[in-house]
Amino acid sequence: MKKKNKVLVGVIVGSRSDLPFMEETIKILKSFEIPYELKVLSAHRNPAETSEYAKKAEKRGIKLIIAAAGLSAHLAGALAAKTILPVIGVPLPSEPLGGIDSFLSTLQMPSGVPVATMSIGKAGARNSAILAAEILSLKYPRIKKRLREYKKKMATTNLAN
Amino acid sequence: MKKKNKVLVGVIVGSRSDLPFMEETIKILKSFEIPYELKVLSAHRNPAETSEYAKKAEKRGIKLIIAAAGLSAHLAGALAAKTILPVIGVPLPSEPLGGIDSFLSTLQMPSGVPVATMSIGKAGARNSAILAAEILSLKYPRIKKRLREYKKKMATTNLAN
Amino acid sequence: MKKKNKVLVGVIVGSRSDLPFMEETIKILKSFEIPYELKVLSAHRNPAETSEYAKKAEKRGIKLIIAAAGLSAHLAGALAAKTILPVIGVPLPSEPLGGIDSFLSTLQMPSGVPVATMSIGKAGARNSAILAAEILSLKYPRIKKRLREYKKKMATTNLAN
Amino acid sequence: MKKKNKVLVGVIVGSRSDLPFMEETIKILKSFEIPYELKVLSAHRNPAETSEYAKKAEKRGIKLIIAAAGLSAHLAGALAAKTILPVIGVPLPSEPLGGIDSFLSTLQMPSGVPVATMSIGKAGARNSAILAAEILSLKYPRIKKRLREYKKKMATTNLAN
Amino acid sequence: MKKKNKVLVGVIVGSRSDLPFMEETIKILKSFEIPYELKVLSAHRNPAETSEYAKKAEKRGIKLIIAAAGLSAHLAGALAAKTILPVIGVPLPSEPLGGIDSFLSTLQMPSGVPVATMSIGKAGARNSAILAAEILSLKYPRIKKRLREYKKKMATTNLAN
Amino acid sequence: MKKKNKVLVGVIVGSRSDLPFMEETIKILKSFEIPYELKVLSAHRNPAETSEYAKKAEKRGIKLIIAAAGLSAHLAGALAAKTILPVIGVPLPSEPLGGIDSFLSTLQMPSGVPVATMSIGKAGARNSAILAAEILSLKYPRIKKRLREYKKKMATTNLAN
Amino acid sequence: MKKKNKVLVGVIVGSRSDLPFMEETIKILKSFEIPYELKVLSAHRNPAETSEYAKKAEKRGIKLIIAAAGLSAHLAGALAAKTILPVIGVPLPSEPLGGIDSFLSTLQMPSGVPVATMSIGKAGARNSAILAAEILSLKYPRIKKRLREYKKKMATTNLAN
Amino acid sequence: MKKKNKVLVGVIVGSRSDLPFMEETIKILKSFEIPYELKVLSAHRNPAETSEYAKKAEKRGIKLIIAAAGLSAHLAGALAAKTILPVIGVPLPSEPLGGIDSFLSTLQMPSGVPVATMSIGKAGARNSAILAAEILSLKYPRIKKRLREYKKKMATTNLAN
Repeated sequence: MKKKNKVLVGVIVGSRSDLPFMEETIKILKSFEIPYELKVLSAHRNPAETSEYAKKAEKRGIKLIIAAAGLSAHLAGALAAKTILPVIGVPLPSEPLGGIDSFLSTLQMPSGVPVATMSIGKAGARNSAILAAEILSLKYPRIKKRLREYKKKMATTNLAN
Repeated sequence: MKKKNKVLVGVIVGSRSDLPFMEETIKILKSFEIPYELKVLSAHRNPAETSEYAKKAEKRGIKLIIAAAGLSAHLAGALAAKTILPVIGVPLPSEPLGGIDSFLSTLQMPSGVPVATMSIGKAGARNSAILAAEILSLKYPRIKKRLREYKKKMATTNLAN
Repeated sequence: MKKKNKVLVGVIVGSRSDLPFMEETIKILKSFEIPYELKVLSAHRNPAETSEYAKKAEKRGIKLIIAAAGLSAHLAGALAAKTILPVIGVPLPSEPLGGIDSFLSTLQMPSGVPVATMSIGKAGARNSAILAAEILSLKYPRIKKRLREYKKKMATTNLAN
Repeated sequence: MKKKNKVLVGVIVGSRSDLPFMEETIKILKSFEIPYELKVLSAHRNPAETSEYAKKAEKRGIKLIIAAAGLSAHLAGALAAKTILPVIGVPLPSEPLGGIDSFLSTLQMPSGVPVATMSIGKAGARNSAILAAEILSLKYPRIKKRLREYKKKMATTNLAN
Repeated sequence: MKKKNKVLVGVIVGSRSDLPFMEETIKILKSFEIPYELKVLSAHRNPAETSEYAKKAEKRGIKLIIAAAGLSAHLAGALAAKTILPVIGVPLPSEPLGGIDSFLSTLQMPSGVPVATMSIGKAGARNSAILAAEILSLKYPRIKKRLREYKKKMATTNLAN
Repeated sequence: MKKKNKVLVGVIVGSRSDLPFMEETIKILKSFEIPYELKVLSAHRNPAETSEYAKKAEKRGIKLIIAAAGLSAHLAGALAAKTILPVIGVPLPSEPLGGIDSFLSTLQMPSGVPVATMSIGKAGARNSAILAAEILSLKYPRIKKRLREYKKKMATTNLAN
Repeated sequence: MKKKNKVLVGVIVGSRSDLPFMEETIKILKSFEIPYELKVLSAHRNPAETSEYAKKAEKRGIKLIIAAAGLSAHLAGALAAKTILPVIGVPLPSEPLGGIDSFLSTLQMPSGVPVATMSIGKAGARNSAILAAEILSLKYPRIKKRLREYKKKMATTNLAN
Repeated sequence: MKKKNKVLVGVIVGSRSDLPFMEETIKILKSFEIPYELKVLSAHRNPAETSEYAKKAEKRGIKLIIAAAGLSAHLAGALAAKTILPVIGVPLPSEPLGGIDSFLSTLQMPSGVPVATMSIGKAGARNSAILAAEILSLKYPRIKKRLREYKKKMATTNLAN
């Protein structure tokens, strides 16, 4: 994250053990030069801090939140309940159900409180950064430019294979 | 609920449409003369009130909380995150997944924050009241007496069938 | 849709029979005064037109696309493959699998091509409009204002119940 | 387990191979100084002994039972059928269904005979001890004190990460 | 059931509401002139009677037991745990999981205690009677003769359709 | 298999790679001194031979058939379609669905053609031999005696653990 | 079916109750003027006739077989095992599993014996006729012409909606 | 692939990492001397090229297309949407859902656009080549001859085991 840039994206994980997945997110955010911050906050173990984070995010200039969690993954929903910023949810796989629990918990939000759910695990972690770039492109032309280059390269790389 | 008795059990549902299920809970609580209160509080639409309820429950003399919700049923977990009282979760069925979403969301809680999960729907609603009675029996002999009678009758009724 | 306003959101359904679900989306888009257009385009029966729509959407000033489909729901993914706009996917339920097919098809997108997946059916249809409002709030203060009012009302209504 | 203390919690596993999971339970029970006993009793291979255990538990002063089993996990249900003590069920994962069999067998109890079902495997094993502490707190202030400390430490540790 | 014939097959259901399914079983047992008895006995609500039934069945001359139950269907397993007679299990469907719970509970028995599991619901109820006839044919030539006729007729009827 | 004894049980596997599972079956059949034969016959690759085997089994003095297969496990059903002997099906696990395919294919037989389905994999393989012994006990007192000893030992061993 | 034309497609259903689904197939075969025959043949109740049908189909000039069945749907596989003609399988839905059983039984064929599996129920029934037309187009230009017209009309109709 | 022979079968994979699975397909196509070509084309990363390939395949003399993909496997469907050639789909397994996502995405095609779906993974990859041979046998007697030999050998090999 560039020092002087104001944080645009909050990346939240439920526990330290989820971090390896989110390195995928961060690699892409960095390559797009999108300023971000990374926090470990559990909806179940740190409900007050999680709630506080979501409540203050908009005022702090954050534009969207990416939340990743496993098992009964309430994190993205708990954040979405306290903010009007878009919340992107990344369901993480874990033994023994492989993520069926986390993606149903993340996806099946009731009317009024959407979570933009990504695919399970590393692919979803990468896609959360790309969706973030797609959303921020609405306002930041430099991010749109990077995104366009990324998509072009992605197409070429696959064909070159 | 008897007037002068202090509320022992908080029964919380995520939305008004969940109430028909919980009538099963209340019928049994009443028959055991366990004082209760019933609230509609959504973890996603009323996160502040939900959190507040859980935080204050113990001080108010409540001994345990029963929470029922459908879809990505975070309610029981959100309450459990803010109290050291036992929280009993009743996953409610809803179309089209029939409750697979709600019971995995309720059941698959991470280490440290248990939710005592019941079977899906009306059977679970009934059982939440019976488990409440089993727990309260630890302290209240009159509830234990009622519970014992209930279990005896249950056995006889089935055989009589 | 207000006449003179430029369309900001494209709402695409795979077939005419999907329209009743998307009336939920449109009701909310209208209440937020977000200009939209509604098209019936099948990824499988009208692949050329679907592809063309996605390719031209950005130039036409559209800011995001909502796509709803059932069964092996490729629509959102097919659109996302041809645009850098955010694509929100609404998996629709259908007999006999109830939407397990459509949400896995919508959700499990590969790295590089995210679809912001909503919950299944009407709840997801409603949430797609709210997520659209959350995203557009980044640029349009009047939508942010409406969204804030909507969220407040939602909380109060549930408690009033 | 402290020598002179009367056993409060019975921890039952279906077979010796389930013991590694329940070490998680025991570690926490010990840290809370909750006197427990550990038995290997299979609902299918030792039905008479299992039934006898449940029938006599209350008279022996046991306050609740934790039962862990895999496959068609009848153990918790079989115990619950013979006692009015609260029974906590821990579904254990096993190949090839990963615990879908054991948690449905444990969870889907009929009206009248609740089992407080925990999440699958080690997380559930840990949570069974914490739920036990939450229940016993109703009567034992010293356990409540330990529980409160545990919860505080849990929150801090996660944030410190 | 013919009066003077000794009962060969015990048909047990978990609750009265399961009886309509088992009428299919009984119709076929009758048509094969296999003497049977029908009991309502719940593994969870009448554990002592269930256990007693299984323990005494062999001595009473019963040759095999058919057990039908829904939800966390422990009935067949509980009977099998107390007898060396063959036990045939019929998983019954129930809302909202449609029998996934009952067939996994019936099927996934641990080593040493088999339950011969049939397909879910009415087809399984019918097949339990036919399997009973196949097993009893080992000893009773008149049942074998009936079975052979039944199978022939079944083939012809389907072709005639 | 003792030389002079007539084969009582036919054990059929779909392919050579299924044999390690069925060693569990054979170990128990041997310990009960039940004469058996073991064949590799695929319902899909050797339909004529499979059909022929089932058709002739009864005349050859075989009393029951155990069939084990993976994937869309038609073997037990194909055999059951051609004989009036009891057929026991053992669903074998295989990647990537872990046996959900094989147990539904084995279990969900239509009215008229039962397959006595066992649990998935090695536990089911063992149980198929025990069920075979339970069935043969109807006619062979020496097998019943062995079975009774086996069950007793099983109970004691588990408790001894 | 036109009288003088030789049958090109055999449509087989497992039981008479499956016919309403296959009317969808037949409507399309008729509109393409593809000569067909319709038979009721159960893999489990009429194994000999089913086997005979498949064995003779090629010699009779039949070019491909469409087979529809529910539950543990072995029909398509049983036919495929006895012919080198392409076999198209249509999994039919049935209560309570909605076709999960039938499509896994149809789909998960072992190496060497493919079944071209269609989507569940009526959509699959229609698609089986279209795939038949696509395959027959390889040899019959008049079918190819019809198919081309059908596809064009399908695209236009959806857009016109 | 023989040099001078015109390509009859197009084998398409979504990404280079899918190639190991399709080596199974190619081995069999080669052994049948069916000329083929192999392309890496992603429905999501190379939508234009994928669409172009399907559109031109028929004119180039290709007779059928085999498409293999994982996750939300749209590849076969996207190709089928643009051609009247038969399209065979091979769902590939991937962590953590093991292919439930890819086979539902491949299988559940809407009316009008069939995909001939094979079993998941390597068995399906092999079967796609055999189904291709079965289809091409309609027109190419030399392929029919090879196919007949293959089937005979397959049967013998299994029995020899």
